[in-house]
Amino acid sequence: MDKGLNESRKDFPILDQQVNGEPLVYLDNAATTQKPNQVLTAILNYYQADNANVHRGVHTLAERATDRYEAARDKVAAFINAASRKSIVYTRSTTEALNWVAASFGNLVVNEGDEIVISQLEHHSNIVPWQQVAQKRHATLKYIDLTKDGELDMASAKRQITDKTKIVSIAHAANVMGVVNPIKELAAIAHQHGAYMIADGAQAVPHMKVDVQDLDVDFYAFSGHKMLAPTGIGVLYGKQDLLEMMPPAQFGGEMIDFVHHQDASWTQLPWKFEAGTPNISGAIGLASAIDYLNQLGMANVQAYEREIVAYTLPKLLSIDGLTLYGPSDPNKHTGVMAFNLAGLHPHDVATGLDMEGVAVRAGHHCAQPLMDYLNVTATARASFYFYNTFAEADKLVEAITAVKEFFADGIS
Amino acid sequence: MDKGLNESRKDFPILDQQVNGEPLVYLDNAATTQKPNQVLTAILNYYQADNANVHRGVHTLAERATDRYEAARDKVAAFINAASRKSIVYTRSTTEALNWVAASFGNLVVNEGDEIVISQLEHHSNIVPWQQVAQKRHATLKYIDLTKDGELDMASAKRQITDKTKIVSIAHAANVMGVVNPIKELAAIAHQHGAYMIADGAQAVPHMKVDVQDLDVDFYAFSGHKMLAPTGIGVLYGKQDLLEMMPPAQFGGEMIDFVHHQDASWTQLPWKFEAGTPNISGAIGLASAIDYLNQLGMANVQAYEREIVAYTLPKLLSIDGLTLYGPSDPNKHTGVMAFNLAGLHPHDVATGLDMEGVAVRAGHHCAQPLMDYLNVTATARASFYFYNTFAEADKLVEAITAVKEFFADGIS
Repeated sequence: MDKGLNESRKDFPILDQQVNGEPLVYLDNAATTQKPNQVLTAILNYYQADNANVHRGVHTLAERATDRYEAARDKVAAFINAASRKSIVYTRSTTEALNWVAASFGNLVVNEGDEIVISQLEHHSNIVPWQQVAQKRHATLKYIDLTKDGELDMASAKRQITDKTKIVSIAHAANVMGVVNPIKELAAIAHQHGAYMIADGAQAVPHMKVDVQDLDVDFYAFSGHKMLAPTGIGVLYGKQDLLEMMPPAQFGGEMIDFVHHQDASWTQLPWKFEAGTPNISGAIGLASAIDYLNQLGMANVQAYEREIVAYTLPKLLSIDGLTLYGPSDPNKHTGVMAFNLAGLHPHDVATGLDMEGVAVRAGHHCAQPLMDYLNVTATARASFYFYNTFAEADKLVEAITAVKEFFADGIS
Repeated sequence: MDKGLNESRKDFPILDQQVNGEPLVYLDNAATTQKPNQVLTAILNYYQADNANVHRGVHTLAERATDRYEAARDKVAAFINAASRKSIVYTRSTTEALNWVAASFGNLVVNEGDEIVISQLEHHSNIVPWQQVAQKRHATLKYIDLTKDGELDMASAKRQITDKTKIVSIAHAANVMGVVNPIKELAAIAHQHGAYMIADGAQAVPHMKVDVQDLDVDFYAFSGHKMLAPTGIGVLYGKQDLLEMMPPAQFGGEMIDFVHHQDASWTQLPWKFEAGTPNISGAIGLASAIDYLNQLGMANVQAYEREIVAYTLPKLLSIDGLTLYGPSDPNKHTGVMAFNLAGLHPHDVATGLDMEGVAVRAGHHCAQPLMDYLNVTATARASFYFYNTFAEADKLVEAITAVKEFFADGIS
């Protein structure tokens, strides 16, 4: 398996380059993934053969573009096992999807004195929109605590989710701690208390089979660009009856039924939420990415990532002075591994690794409340995808050791 | 000039195809334009060499991606002569840009009893967001009337814009009537009354040199996909002091300064408005489209379109039973020509033209209040761009005549 899953690496020519004189080892997949040739070809093919605006035209190109754009929606619905294509709303990103749920649905159902429950490990995109709702509706924003391993503390979850709770919104997979949260169990708890369950799936959908009906989530958000698709396309899944009651977040072309001079009415789902010309080529790229992932098989993707983490994590933990954030048990871990080196700023670590050709991220990872909770200002983060190899895992470990030695020499 | 401006047609291989056994004549450019090879290559090159998430990384690819994304912003700023790159906010589309101005700025400055002034020729994206503000703020939405030629009636404008007016929002070029509105004059009138001037530039920026400082607009919105760039990228220009006072429309990663558990603060312009991973490749594609247009020269683009309209419009007007909406003087006309044929539904006209290979749009063109004003339910619309040829104009005229005859035969 050293070449990455199913010899897929050949489909990603960007990985075959040198950075700072070293072969690129791209371990920033939690920020964005690379795109296989198949996805780029699908986009190119669309623009070279079928490009037109969707829905509004009766001419041949407009019909072809509309067919491809709507077929992509069917593919997304099947990929996450949505009951209906009407539940699939295209957005720019996970961030936009969560913003729309918060601004349109949150402000509709949250009233004074109600509570919104999130957790200590959320991304800013699943924190700040809820702060806004809480402030506007005079509600309270509460946090579920973590265990010392960085998992959700389910005892804390059961304390925080009460009959006062209107919204529970939790990352399905965590972008720093590398844990998968028990969304199905949380949804059951939320529903027992009459609350709605929302999951941020940005770090989950690219890496495992997600079934929104089995999870019984009310809303689910994810991004194309973290799963081989282009930037600028994301998805908001919502249960149909909830999307029906939720007002549109944006207004204009496509989303209307009738526009009179002083008022207007909205068209049916899912277009009610898609004002203006959408990211048509983005949707077509997303469909191609789903084809690619389906061909690999999401179970295989997940199994391969587990294997490479099981290989890498013990090596990381054996590095003297390395602190891992999140579970040390590889079985509890996604391909995301956040760490610090004693005495070194994570930015210096990432810059040092870049000199070795290894691309990792350093910073607060859009999770400042988590940084506060962990009592750090930042961490380094390596994040794997199916195209990463075991040799690259070795290179990461070697490069960390080299960076440690470089700074030790520099200081001594 | 029969090959289109500067032999540019060779850069658009999509145009070299047959539809229904006839050479494609693509005259739906007001809905979306085709993309030249140069733009597609720029996107491909980005994904094959530099793709990473922007702003958050210290590694080489992240720096390259950020540099390209931000260099694109500089290019946009120069293209419309913005005073500062801080005035350029990326959006999904014109629709999103107008929604953000309405929801964030409109709701901030419009109070009970205030007035918002638009016109009878606006696109739904410049109507419905203002209806929402008017309803929420208990303000009044007023319409500027049109002359019988379909131009803005400036006497009506001067009556409607008063000291009660807080917002004037008008299309720079009209998507149905094919007129260019006097935005600079309207901005001066608005400012005399202490109102803010907003222009919907979706149909203007692709077709003429736009100078936002000369126009003295407060906000200006346009879309990439109508000017050779990909779908999913648009621009909101705003005067810097107004963007500073305007709250963000979306919340999450990238747009924050600090996030605490219960509140957060925002980063500086322009990133305050760009929550989450943006459409990076879209911005890079937009920069390439601007390079392409700059190489043609916007004055040349405009002159060529005037020439082809001067050639086409009299031929259309000479067709018996054809009603043109908008000025019959070609000098007052953009490349957009909306028309109906007596006794025929515009959808039948468009379907008939498609059988001849000619792609035009039919419907209300997201301008139902205008349709009411014109007392029609729909129109057909042919819209030219610089790559269209005089031979294609001839084919349009021939095909309209053929459609007329086909339906006359069918009925008789």
